[in-house]
Amino acid sequence: MSDTLPASQTPDWIAVDWIAVDWGTTHLRAWAMRGDEPVARAASDAGMSSLDRDGFEPALLALVTRWLGTGRVTPVIACGMVGSRQGWVEAPYMAVPCGPLNADHMVRGTTLDPRIALWVVPGLKQDAPADVMRGEETQIAGLLAGDPRFSGLACLPGTHTKWVTVRGGEVQSFSTFMTGELYGLIAGHSVLRHGLGGQDAWDHAAFAEAVAEALHQPAGLAGDLFRLRAEGLLHGMGAAVARARLSGLLIGNELAALGERRVGPVRLIGASSLNRLYAAALAIAGCEAAEAGGDDLTLAGLTLARHTLMEAPRRRA
Amino acid sequence: MSDTLPASQTPDWIAVDWIAVDWGTTHLRAWAMRGDEPVARAASDAGMSSLDRDGFEPALLALVTRWLGTGRVTPVIACGMVGSRQGWVEAPYMAVPCGPLNADHMVRGTTLDPRIALWVVPGLKQDAPADVMRGEETQIAGLLAGDPRFSGLACLPGTHTKWVTVRGGEVQSFSTFMTGELYGLIAGHSVLRHGLGGQDAWDHAAFAEAVAEALHQPAGLAGDLFRLRAEGLLHGMGAAVARARLSGLLIGNELAALGERRVGPVRLIGASSLNRLYAAALAIAGCEAAEAGGDDLTLAGLTLARHTLMEAPRRRA
Repeated sequence: MSDTLPASQTPDWIAVDWIAVDWGTTHLRAWAMRGDEPVARAASDAGMSSLDRDGFEPALLALVTRWLGTGRVTPVIACGMVGSRQGWVEAPYMAVPCGPLNADHMVRGTTLDPRIALWVVPGLKQDAPADVMRGEETQIAGLLAGDPRFSGLACLPGTHTKWVTVRGGEVQSFSTFMTGELYGLIAGHSVLRHGLGGQDAWDHAAFAEAVAEALHQPAGLAGDLFRLRAEGLLHGMGAAVARARLSGLLIGNELAALGERRVGPVRLIGASSLNRLYAAALAIAGCEAAEAGGDDLTLAGLTLARHTLMEAPRRRA
Repeated sequence: MSDTLPASQTPDWIAVDWIAVDWGTTHLRAWAMRGDEPVARAASDAGMSSLDRDGFEPALLALVTRWLGTGRVTPVIACGMVGSRQGWVEAPYMAVPCGPLNADHMVRGTTLDPRIALWVVPGLKQDAPADVMRGEETQIAGLLAGDPRFSGLACLPGTHTKWVTVRGGEVQSFSTFMTGELYGLIAGHSVLRHGLGGQDAWDHAAFAEAVAEALHQPAGLAGDLFRLRAEGLLHGMGAAVARARLSGLLIGNELAALGERRVGPVRLIGASSLNRLYAAALAIAGCEAAEAGGDDLTLAGLTLARHTLMEAPRRRA
């Protein structure tokens, strides 16, 4: 649990209008809001995957109790896996093409504590090719809040990287690649793990070379991976090169699939280290990319969600 | 530990000329041999990965003590990871192109028990693209023992599938794909695991379709994988289809990389279930395949190794 202020300077109580919540598989983050401005924030590792259905409300209260007044109801607007079937309350997906937010589809969750009123933002689904997102739609809404005319491709790199085609204020289509998860599985659990760990060094030239190789020849990924082990055994390839090559091979294989959608400039919406990695890989693929922020866009999207709810008849938050 | 005979019928002692051993990362198998004929066999799960250096001899003796005479030395000829740096004794790789067996490169290991004399068959290495094998060279030797003029591509499917180009009695080149390991990681540890387990059913049409898709479009494997999850969430794709598609996508991506080397007929050297899978995938790629046996070829290769050693000056086994 962390705050923007050190504990000694944290007041016992903060007056807030509403609470913004980003609740993913492995994280929970909350912002205390006055109007459109955050005045405090807190986070814990009480992600969806660590909770059963009865665990969500206590996990949230543990983080935000200090922000709740007595004798009044504070709206909580949450996005992410909290709205999945295994979440606090299921918020059924909206089907693309559609705008990323719609007050009529936000779902009111039941709460035991009378001081909070919960609203959950639904994710998006695509029928064919089948795909789903939860949380990223709110970042896209945040992107559009700052740039309502944005038209093009947004990339949200992460465990499950999303590529989202936006046009006319709507999400037209999207594709998910479990590139980050594959990296984690291979680095943590495969026969390659011994050759990848032990230090943080990173060989950018090896990354760039691997991206180019995989763009040119995406077939045989499982062979390129074994090559990392053999290069270590036979030629002493170090962890900095092996890790960078693993990342480059996986991202290159991903970019190779984008084909004609890979026209720039791409907006990158992720952690800055991942944004840099994808920007470098996109440059090798001949595509411009511009960073659009990550956390900031989630909060901007949740703020827009609150306005959308307030303006919707009978759904005031 | 298992024997060909039920325990009640197993004699206390079996007279043997030598012992053949296949010792991999996760398994240990031994055959009691009279001349070129196996008269008993035993196996345990004391693979290399579960042993430290001092653990190899006890693990072997636990399996073969009944086959050892008193007052005489029984040669033991072993192939596989037992010859790796983390094995009983390191048998340095031979560089391709070369014959799969060479008495001058077999390594004599030290043993504490005077009743056995250990010889370890070295693996093969390829400088560029970097690659290594341990154990499969013995199966190739077994293939050549039965068909000395074989020229073409052998496929040894498994955790790390090997494709081996054989010509003129030599291994010319080879490539390893960690396809089986990726399958295991994804099925056992990824977000897809819940959609893949719980039953043994298998949808062959889904396998064939996925092979064809991956052959045609090997890029974006991490996206094809996430599609399995989304199809389960949105359209109720069952485990039998998801598992078959996962396998087909991975094998199709592998076959796509073989390109012009994919000219038949390919000899398949593996467990029969894997051989059938690869034969079906190869047929979709327009390539004939014929099964050549797996275990049998290991024993044939070890038998050839013994003859090679007996014929070599000063290296009699």
